[in-house]
Amino acid sequence: MGEQVKFLLDEDDIPTAWYNIQADLPTPLPPVIHPGTGEPIGPDDLAPLFPMELIGQEVSQERWIDIPDAIRDVYRLWRPTPLFRARRLEAALDTPARIFYKYEGVSPAGSHKPNTAVAQAYYNKAEGVQGLATETGAGQWGSALAMACSFFDLPCDVYMVRVSYDQKPYRRNLIESFGAQVSPSPSERTQAGRNVLADDPDSPGSLGIAISEAVETAATSGGTVKYSLGSVLNHVLMHQTVIGLEAQKQFEQAGAYPDVVIGCAGGGSNFAGFALPFVRDNIVDGKQTRIVAVEPSACPTLTKGQYVYDFGDTAMTTPLIKMYTLGHSFIPAPVHAGGLRYHGMAPIVCALLDQGLIEARAVPQNPVFEAAMTFARTEAIMPAPEASHAIRAAIDEALACRESGEQKTIAFNLCGHGHFDMSAYDAYLSGQLPDFEYSQQDVDRALGELPSVGASAS
Amino acid sequence: MGEQVKFLLDEDDIPTAWYNIQADLPTPLPPVIHPGTGEPIGPDDLAPLFPMELIGQEVSQERWIDIPDAIRDVYRLWRPTPLFRARRLEAALDTPARIFYKYEGVSPAGSHKPNTAVAQAYYNKAEGVQGLATETGAGQWGSALAMACSFFDLPCDVYMVRVSYDQKPYRRNLIESFGAQVSPSPSERTQAGRNVLADDPDSPGSLGIAISEAVETAATSGGTVKYSLGSVLNHVLMHQTVIGLEAQKQFEQAGAYPDVVIGCAGGGSNFAGFALPFVRDNIVDGKQTRIVAVEPSACPTLTKGQYVYDFGDTAMTTPLIKMYTLGHSFIPAPVHAGGLRYHGMAPIVCALLDQGLIEARAVPQNPVFEAAMTFARTEAIMPAPEASHAIRAAIDEALACRESGEQKTIAFNLCGHGHFDMSAYDAYLSGQLPDFEYSQQDVDRALGELPSVGASAS
Repeated sequence: MGEQVKFLLDEDDIPTAWYNIQADLPTPLPPVIHPGTGEPIGPDDLAPLFPMELIGQEVSQERWIDIPDAIRDVYRLWRPTPLFRARRLEAALDTPARIFYKYEGVSPAGSHKPNTAVAQAYYNKAEGVQGLATETGAGQWGSALAMACSFFDLPCDVYMVRVSYDQKPYRRNLIESFGAQVSPSPSERTQAGRNVLADDPDSPGSLGIAISEAVETAATSGGTVKYSLGSVLNHVLMHQTVIGLEAQKQFEQAGAYPDVVIGCAGGGSNFAGFALPFVRDNIVDGKQTRIVAVEPSACPTLTKGQYVYDFGDTAMTTPLIKMYTLGHSFIPAPVHAGGLRYHGMAPIVCALLDQGLIEARAVPQNPVFEAAMTFARTEAIMPAPEASHAIRAAIDEALACRESGEQKTIAFNLCGHGHFDMSAYDAYLSGQLPDFEYSQQDVDRALGELPSVGASAS
Repeated sequence: MGEQVKFLLDEDDIPTAWYNIQADLPTPLPPVIHPGTGEPIGPDDLAPLFPMELIGQEVSQERWIDIPDAIRDVYRLWRPTPLFRARRLEAALDTPARIFYKYEGVSPAGSHKPNTAVAQAYYNKAEGVQGLATETGAGQWGSALAMACSFFDLPCDVYMVRVSYDQKPYRRNLIESFGAQVSPSPSERTQAGRNVLADDPDSPGSLGIAISEAVETAATSGGTVKYSLGSVLNHVLMHQTVIGLEAQKQFEQAGAYPDVVIGCAGGGSNFAGFALPFVRDNIVDGKQTRIVAVEPSACPTLTKGQYVYDFGDTAMTTPLIKMYTLGHSFIPAPVHAGGLRYHGMAPIVCALLDQGLIEARAVPQNPVFEAAMTFARTEAIMPAPEASHAIRAAIDEALACRESGEQKTIAFNLCGHGHFDMSAYDAYLSGQLPDFEYSQQDVDRALGELPSVGASAS
């Protein structure tokens, strides 16, 4: 046989603490602002929605937060995840570069999402919460939280965007199989849903509406039900750092260290989970690894957005967050099939870009799907369309090495498989995916509608 | 954390030889009969369809057949596969039994099928074959062979039953993503297809028709294209023994040895791949492990069929094989969603049952899907409906231990995940799956139509 391709760790190697980059940021994160008062929000503002432990983690300045054994005990159903050396991809590209990828698709829900879902379910259960409410689009986050709740015997209430509920039943079936309740959103169960249905009984729904329904369910529960979010927030990104921490041990095993670290970025959690431990090495140990966030040209938050205060949701119900944003009214082009559709980005990722600690690039979707095909035919894993953005960037780096002759070590996070996203591949393979670039003009127009507190606070 | 749940091996632990049970069978396999002459077939009869190395393996009496490095080199993209201790399932069942499962769903195609697909692609390529033709129903085998062919740069021609081609595009997309050509069957590309279309231009197709098209494509290629089959044949079962051989090493690691070994059986290859090394321990080392093949009540080949000579396909184009059979004209009830639909069974599995070396039982589909849900909510893997037959039997064994207080060690093969089979779960979750039992009367009527050579040769 040839050389080793999988670098595996023992269950005992699952990290015992999450890494909190807030302890090492050269400049602290800007405060989150209450839209009514214009003042920074405090724990009391968040208490109706989140358990105190997660509110504490959100603002903690501790470098390491211990992972409770009960969480590691669930993690080990699929963790540590493998780090692969992509020898067949390297050969196909005829590159002198070494390409590694961390594969999070081995998790029960097929993505990195359970890393935080399990933690959130655990802390809510520990504080006596009796159920979690959340929203989901195509169902990736919903299935992760449903799975996590099943382990802690916690009822899970998922509002699923109606058009996905009707047209993509398979992830809904997965959520139901894990024992959660799934409601098509807009629903008759909330005031927010009823309002929408009164205007348009055939509304296809949107992630914004589903968020409003989940938040209302928690906020009106008298404290028995809390709300759960799958990306963007600081504690969510921190839970994901198990990815990068494991990868660092695996690189030691492989006798390598990356020159370039790549992740796709939608809300920012898989990118951050993989990249933050390497960012730390740059900040603390003086390493000079390039850290690259990759986003779709159709939703170019980091590359065309502005770093200002904006709402986290389209319905303007969240606090104001300083982040790169395309404006909370942003709606991605209907032809965009690659996911990563969020108008904003995790504040930690935005601060890193603003402080020059990471890079960002945008890629159009046809080259992304083309990269996915190259990857599938060499490494034999059908990647999630989101993850394929990272593959595209990694392949481009490797092709540049072929030109330059450099033997760089390239690492990316393969955040999930595409088994439930085959409709996107169906569209690509039948030639129905035009490339689409969201223009700077569109961005500027949307940003003109931003709340004024944003301008003053920034 | 609690006790270990995953037993992993290094890439170096991938077996270096397949186990050929023909060397250890107390009674040799009955010959395969040419339907025209009534005489045993020889290598020349098979040469138009298969490469000589595989024809040799089909009849070999050697106990161990070396696995070429080039095959092990592909295997290690996902092998060794994990052996799991199902601690959460055990706890949910409140059983003193220990339950282990070998998980083949980590393969690129999501099942055990690539174990033989890679071997077949390799040997064909090595003998200068320029392409492989095969049939596929819902696409599980087609995706495995397409993946395997992509590694050896071998064109792959897949005839996919038209109703699946049209209604289940996702596995077709997967096959296409691996670079294979997919034709809906019946097609205009073969005489067999054209004949069917002349009678019925809207024919939904069948596996039998697709086999005829693939065989014709190979047989009329002048030797450039061969045919590939994903189950039933002796060499296919032998390639699958990597599953059981790895599992035996992993049981050593776990300090355990199974009292009961369970696999689901359709054509017989995943069951045999897992079970044969344990059957050997019974035959050669005097172990007394119970070996259980589980099939659907809707297709009760081993439990209600007769051990006689029959055709391997519905179109009566194959040689006559002595096997348990429901008759080659058998068509499973349309309401049956659990797979494992073959009217016959691998001759090796049939001989083992006939010689009293294994047991067989049939289970109805609603209890099977119920077991799948229990498994998903405890072990967090969404199993393939086929694999869920093994889960049902394992759970029943564990529940019997709860009654008796016995601390048995139960092992089953989880031969694949259900990510591409969610329509079956959709039907189950919406209560649309009646149980169906194929009656002994139906079996007897179908067996009345068997070729006479069967009666005399048996």
